[in-house]
Order: sequence, then structure tokens, then C-alpha cells
Amino acid sequence: MAGTVEIETASPNVKGKMEILTDDFDPTAVAVEPLPPVVTVTNVGPSESEEEEDEGVKKPTKKGREIVLGRNVHTTCLAVTEPEANDEFTGDKEAYMAGVLARYRKNLMERTKHHLGYPYNLDFDYGALAQLQHFSINNLGDPFIESNYGVHSRQFEVGVLDWFARLWEIEKNEYWGYITNCGTEGNLHGILVGREVFPDGILYASRESHYSVFKAARMYRMECVKVDTLISGEIDCSDFRVKLLANKDKPAILNVNIGTTVKGAVDDVDLVIQTLEECGFSHDRFYIHCDGALFGLMMPFVRRAPKVTFKKPIGSVSVSGHKFVGCPMPCGVQITRMAHINVLSSNVEYLASRDATIMGSRNGHAPIFLWYTLNRKGYKGFQKEVQKCLRNAHYLKDQLRGAGISAMLNELSSTVVFERPWDEEFVRRWQLACEGNIAHVVVMPNVTIQKLDDFLNELVENRSTWCQKGHGQPPCVAADIGKENCVCTLHK
Amino acid sequence: MAGTVEIETASPNVKGKMEILTDDFDPTAVAVEPLPPVVTVTNVGPSESEEEEDEGVKKPTKKGREIVLGRNVHTTCLAVTEPEANDEFTGDKEAYMAGVLARYRKNLMERTKHHLGYPYNLDFDYGALAQLQHFSINNLGDPFIESNYGVHSRQFEVGVLDWFARLWEIEKNEYWGYITNCGTEGNLHGILVGREVFPDGILYASRESHYSVFKAARMYRMECVKVDTLISGEIDCSDFRVKLLANKDKPAILNVNIGTTVKGAVDDVDLVIQTLEECGFSHDRFYIHCDGALFGLMMPFVRRAPKVTFKKPIGSVSVSGHKFVGCPMPCGVQITRMAHINVLSSNVEYLASRDATIMGSRNGHAPIFLWYTLNRKGYKGFQKEVQKCLRNAHYLKDQLRGAGISAMLNELSSTVVFERPWDEEFVRRWQLACEGNIAHVVVMPNVTIQKLDDFLNELVENRSTWCQKGHGQPPCVAADIGKENCVCTLHK
Repeated sequence: MAGTVEIETASPNVKGKMEILTDDFDPTAVAVEPLPPVVTVTNVGPSESEEEEDEGVKKPTKKGREIVLGRNVHTTCLAVTEPEANDEFTGDKEAYMAGVLARYRKNLMERTKHHLGYPYNLDFDYGALAQLQHFSINNLGDPFIESNYGVHSRQFEVGVLDWFARLWEIEKNEYWGYITNCGTEGNLHGILVGREVFPDGILYASRESHYSVFKAARMYRMECVKVDTLISGEIDCSDFRVKLLANKDKPAILNVNIGTTVKGAVDDVDLVIQTLEECGFSHDRFYIHCDGALFGLMMPFVRRAPKVTFKKPIGSVSVSGHKFVGCPMPCGVQITRMAHINVLSSNVEYLASRDATIMGSRNGHAPIFLWYTLNRKGYKGFQKEVQKCLRNAHYLKDQLRGAGISAMLNELSSTVVFERPWDEEFVRRWQLACEGNIAHVVVMPNVTIQKLDDFLNELVENRSTWCQKGHGQPPCVAADIGKENCVCTLHK
Repeated sequence: MAGTVEIETASPNVKGKMEILTDDFDPTAVAVEPLPPVVTVTNVGPSESEEEEDEGVKKPTKKGREIVLGRNVHTTCLAVTEPEANDEFTGDKEAYMAGVLARYRKNLMERTKHHLGYPYNLDFDYGALAQLQHFSINNLGDPFIESNYGVHSRQFEVGVLDWFARLWEIEKNEYWGYITNCGTEGNLHGILVGREVFPDGILYASRESHYSVFKAARMYRMECVKVDTLISGEIDCSDFRVKLLANKDKPAILNVNIGTTVKGAVDDVDLVIQTLEECGFSHDRFYIHCDGALFGLMMPFVRRAPKVTFKKPIGSVSVSGHKFVGCPMPCGVQITRMAHINVLSSNVEYLASRDATIMGSRNGHAPIFLWYTLNRKGYKGFQKEVQKCLRNAHYLKDQLRGAGISAMLNELSSTVVFERPWDEEFVRRWQLACEGNIAHVVVMPNVTIQKLDDFLNELVENRSTWCQKGHGQPPCVAADIGKENCVCTLHK
């Protein structure tokens, strides 16, 4: 029976054609020449023909990035190539790969040095954990119930979860949680739990919520009501009230932002709860998910901040691990109430573990990174870093304003919002996140005064050039950050 | 204004209480003593009081694992502790942590050595990539459109995607895809794309599909029809036909298994397509997602296997990266048709990137691991490994049957299904995945004949003891794996 039945020619009417193998194994059944031919590209997109190639790395042209839906633009690509027969002998391939990696590392160092726009703490040293990279660590399923797969790190994961449970004031035996792949997974989980608790609930989220919240609404087929925001970026509870009253017949599932993506605004969870109560929503008719991607770990160390605590009627809190803590890869922490989890659980014997996570297979290295940093820094270490970040953010805002640049800093936030620089090259060099007329810098523990000064000097110098080049006056950003923060010709 | 406004006592009626900070920053606003008190546990679950503690690591008792919904059992936990003031001076904490990690590493080595049950290739050496662990690499958003965050690995990711596109025969400019966090994310994505293409489509999946498929149906609020399977684990197309004909008015979204979780059965995608056509479903009325978690990368190298190719009317294929390839953390590859992606996309200016992924922030290390291994092994390297796995799986099945143990091996699969061992301790030692009366070993590239012999010797020796201990005769597993593979007293 060696290789005689080719699937393409096999009669498709034979039921259960793939028979259970009971006779002797025939090794010639394994295909001899499986290398597929290179697929012919019949229709090359315009960008592809404009690429420059440099040492095997395709680089984008300087025309500026295109943002197009439904395209697959290979601006950069390190092709995978089939090893030559004599590669082991010549060492050419090894040398090529080592070269690629060395150049890449150099590039990462440069990019890390000039990063300001995203809320990632790039300052960490996990050298002590390099020894674990040889293992395939997977915490598949539930953190609290071991699966049969032994190469896991649940003991670290549960330690980290306990630390966050303590931070957010929920008892060990009353919470459930897990370490996620990123902030988005936390939001997806929190909102899913909310929907399972209230299947006909309406999802309310402010317009400045992270886009994953609206993605969740679409994924989960939930009715979603967008709530207006104040100029600070906080949810506008008077608008929330109007929208709640228009939908009194259905339970409310609410996403509360503990630090919005663009402005770092913190929704007032107390006012949100009060609004719900005043609109007649008793505690058994609403579910609050707190998206604390960045600030969920900063707020507890700031005295006047609205406190995130399970002593209030909230359902879940998520925070990212690669943001304030710092981690080589994205990860996050999700904590919810045990009581909510049963509605989501389904017992899966295959894993010998119930599975109430989104992902099933889960990165077992991330919990160890978090455990390591939490142990080293502790509450007090984070407190010092929060203090430093707030101080440096204030410095940046003051310097920007001193240089005649519109800028805003929310109270007790480290996200400095300012007028978007004209030059895309500058924006990309400093990796600024932009939206409309504004850009922001998120001051993280790795952002020093020295780095801010470098940035400021470069910005001020370049800005005068942009003005000369005929970009005219800086834009009015009063609509984005308020008149009092805008220094355009009209408002200064 | 230093610290005078405590949120707990603030009037909750003040709208927009968190004002934009325009005056000078007051560092005393940062809380001085944020360390939260340890939350008192008022109701310790029974398991918690039964724990043994050993060098700081809580161990589960030998009573056997409990699988209970709605519990949070801290069977193992490495607590995070606050650093002492003099830790830096004494070095005690560093020493403690180094000790924990050294013991953990030893445990991982032992567990890795005795692993047989899960489809993970534990044999890899990414030493050359250890230098990259210092960087926070995040491919947030779309792989083909750069976000402003510069510390990414899209050039590696696209190289890996191109390799898989070539493997599954779809042209470079006609596919879209990304590197996921695990096989589940691939299934979640594929089924979501299917639902967005056919919003009123019904999801069909065989009973032996991975549980994430049914999780997706619940998450996405899709009507889901379970289809029967043959004894091999393949989808039963005659049952599929009956169920399709009962729902002719709605489009079909189908999950096709390229290797089921328990039996490693490969659904016959050609027969599935033919069934759809014969039931009157034209190509614009069905969407097929191929879950190729493990076998998606093995099948192309096996001549007689049903070919997974985009030349057939399939919509998406997913495969895991930590399974056959081997990777320190879970990851996967998802490839779909560009044409399907537009329905899912939403342009998010914040990232300067449209986002059609599930996760948003994405692990940038995983693509480099995959790129590294694909480059080193190439198609021919994988072919050799597939050959070795199939050969060794056959050896294991033959040895089991020779020892009078019921066992089944699907044609061209490396998953050996056999009678579940009586002893839970033995099952856990070898990390076997079990379901009902059956267990399985997935023969991966790191599973040598030597390891299989060790396992077989231990199994045969222990099995005679279990029989003496009064467990009686081995169970009949004919219902699970067929009469011809069962050697119980009735069928042998």
C-alpha cells in the first residue's frame, strides 16, 4: 500500500477512508520530496515593487507608511530559506543567522533608547531567568488546578495573583484570576464574565476606552453604548446617567478606565457606582470591569487617586504586566470574583482542569518574570518608581509649556499629551503614539530626565524648522486638551 | 492641596473631580505608606489546611487532585514577599530567589525528561536568542503594517508567515495572517472570521474537536451543531450530511480537525467539501477553518494524508508553534485569505495600524523562535522528524499490543491511544493526557526509543501490580478504539 492512494485521486465517497493502522508500518508512506514549489505571485501590489533590499532585510521606502485595509504589504521581511546540503559543513547558514541577529539586536538597542510613546517600562534585567528559556513552560488551563502537563509555573503564577489580590483587597479564597497574554485578554475576559453574568446586559464604555473594549462588544455580540468623555478623558457621568435611564430595563456591564490609552485619564469609579445606584440599578443588576492596563499598578501608590478595590461592587480588574512592571513579552493579570467564574467554567477532562481562561495554553514564563520583579521591588519599590514617573512627567509638561508648546497632564497621571509634531520621521524616531492633532509621551520608570531633555531639545529645534518650512502656526488643540492647555495663537 | 482630598471622603457629586493638573506638582501627593494590610482569610477551604509546606513551596497532599468548580485551591504557591530594608546589604533575598529558581530548574528538567502525553516538542536550543530577552518585543497590531512602536520583530514574523503560506499554497499577496499566542487563538480567530463572513452561519464541529471550538461558539453566540465521529476520531460525514440538510437555509461554518486532540484523527477535508456541495452548499455559502494545531505541520510531509491547501475552498488554517516546532512558550500561526479580513478590520489610529488580530499586543519573541527553527531545519529537517515520529509511534503501539495492552494508532498519526493506566501517580509521572478509559502518548521529535522503552518497562511492571491489587481485568475499550484494537477478555 506504499503511497499508492493519493488523496487527490481517491474516491471521495469512501466513508472513513483514513483507516486505523493495524498492519505493519510502511516508512515509504512518508513523502520523499515534500518541498512545495514557490507559489507564483500573479499580482504584485504597488508597494512591493518599490522596496529596497539591504542585506536580506527589505526596507520600506521613505514615502511614508500606508494604512490600507485589505492589503498585505511586505514592507519588511526576513525570508526563511531552506538549508543547503552542505550548510553544516560550511557554517554559512549559522554565520548568516548570527549576522542577522547581531544587526537586529543593535537595532533593538537603538529603538529601545529612543522610545517614549508607549506605556512600556523597558528597563529590566531578567538575566537570572535566562536558564529557563530551555523549557517549554505552559500553564494550560486553570492556574489553581494542575493539568497533567508537568512543565508549568503555577506556583509562581498563584504567588503573583495573591500579590495582586492583596493589592486590590480581595480575600484569597474569594478571587479567581490568571496571568493573561496582554491587556486586551484581560478586557476580553472581564467583559465576557460580565456578559455571562448578565446575558442581556448592555455594555457601556466611554469613547476613550481602549479599542479592545469595542472589539469585545463586536466579538460577543453585545449591545454597546458609547458614553461621552470630559476634556480630561474621563467618563462623563452626566451623559452616562442619560444613557442608563434610557435603558433601565436591561442590566449594565460597564468598562471603567483606570488610565485611558491616550490621555491617561482615570474614571471615577465611585461616581460611576453612585450614578448606577441613583438610576435605580441595584448591585445585582450591574457588573463593572476595571481596565487598569497601565495605571492599575500605579494608582494604589497615589494617595488621592480613586481606589480600585473589591470592597467596592466591582466585578473584575485587569492590568498589564509588560507596562509598569516591565517584561520581555506582553502579559497581564486578571482578577475577578470566584462567584462569577462558575458561569464561565466548563470542565474539560482532557486537561484534567476546568478552563475559565480565554486562551487555554498559556505562557509559563510570564508569571516567573512578574514573580521575580515583584519580589525584588516590592510595594515600596513600585511606590518609588511611581513617584519618579509623576515627577518626571511634570517636568516634561512644564518644559513643553515653557517652550510654547500646548500640553496637558492629568492629575496624578504620567501621560503627557501635547501638540502632534509635524514631522512623521520625528514621530517615528521617538515612537510617539498619535491621535488626530495630539501625541503623547508616557513617562515610565526607564524614562530619565536626560532622555526627556534630549527629546525636548530635538523637538524644539525641529519645530522651528517645521514652522519655517511653511507648516504655518501650530494647530489649536483646545478641543482635545482644553483651552487652558492650548497655546495656539487664539488661546495663548 | 497636599493629600487633603481622600477619595473615600470626597463628595461623589463633584463632576470631573480628577482635574487636569495645571499648577505645580506636589510630590507629597504620592502616598507615603501604601503597603496594604494582609487581607484576613475568614473561610479557609478544606484543601488549604491540608497542605504540606516544603522550603517555601506548598505541595498538594497525596489525596489526589480535586477537580471542583468555583474553588480557588492554593495547592502550590511561591508567595511574593516584601523586600526587607537591609536585603540589598545582606543579600538574603537574592540568595533565597536563586535557591527557588535552582530547585525549580531541577524540577523542570525532571518533568521534561518524563513527559509523554502532550504534543509538545521539548527538544530545542535557543541559546543564540538569549541575548534578546533583554528587550520588550511587541508586535502590536497587524504584522504587515508597522505601528509606531519600534521594538518589534515584524520582519521575522512576516518571514515565518510567508513560509507557512508557501506550505499551504496561497500566494503572498492573497493571504493574511499573524503569529498567535496558541492554538486556541488560531481557532478563535478562524471561527470569528467565519462568523463575520456569515453572520447567521451555523458552526459545525465534530464531537472530538478541541474544546476551544465550543468555547468560541459560546463566546461568539453562534448556533453550534455537534457532528458524530467515527471510531478513528474522524468526523462522520454521513451524520454531517443529515445535519446540513436539516439546516439548508443557513450558511455553514465548519471546523475541520487536522489531527484531533485525543486520537490524532485527521478529518477528510475533501469528503467534507464534497458533502457540503452535495447538500447544495455552493462555495459562497460555507467557510472552513482547519484546526491543524499539531498535524498541520506534519501532514504536508506525509504522502497519503489529505492535503491542506488553499487551492481547495478553505478559509483559514491554524497550527501551533510550540508543538511540532518546539518553543519555550505557547504560540501559533494563523493564515487566512486577505479577502476575508476586511470584514474584521477596524482602523485604530492609536496604533497607526489596523487591527484584525484577537490580541492586539503580541509576543515579539515567538516569531524569532519560529524563524530560527524553520531556518535551521527547513522542509527537509521537518520531513525527517515526521518520519522518525511516525516510526517511533508505530514501535510504541506494537510494543503495547505485544504486552497485551489495548492500543490504537491512526494511520499516519503519531498519537498512540491505549488503555488508561490504573494508577494516577503513574499517569502524572509520565504526564499522560487521559479521557475516560483511554490515555495517549504523542510521539514528538524529542521522544526516543530509549524513552519509550523506559516507559513501557515501567508500565508493564506496574500493570501487573495493579492487577494483583484487585483492580481486576483491564477495561474493555472497544467503544473507544474499536474491537480490533481492544484486547480485553471479551475481544482478545
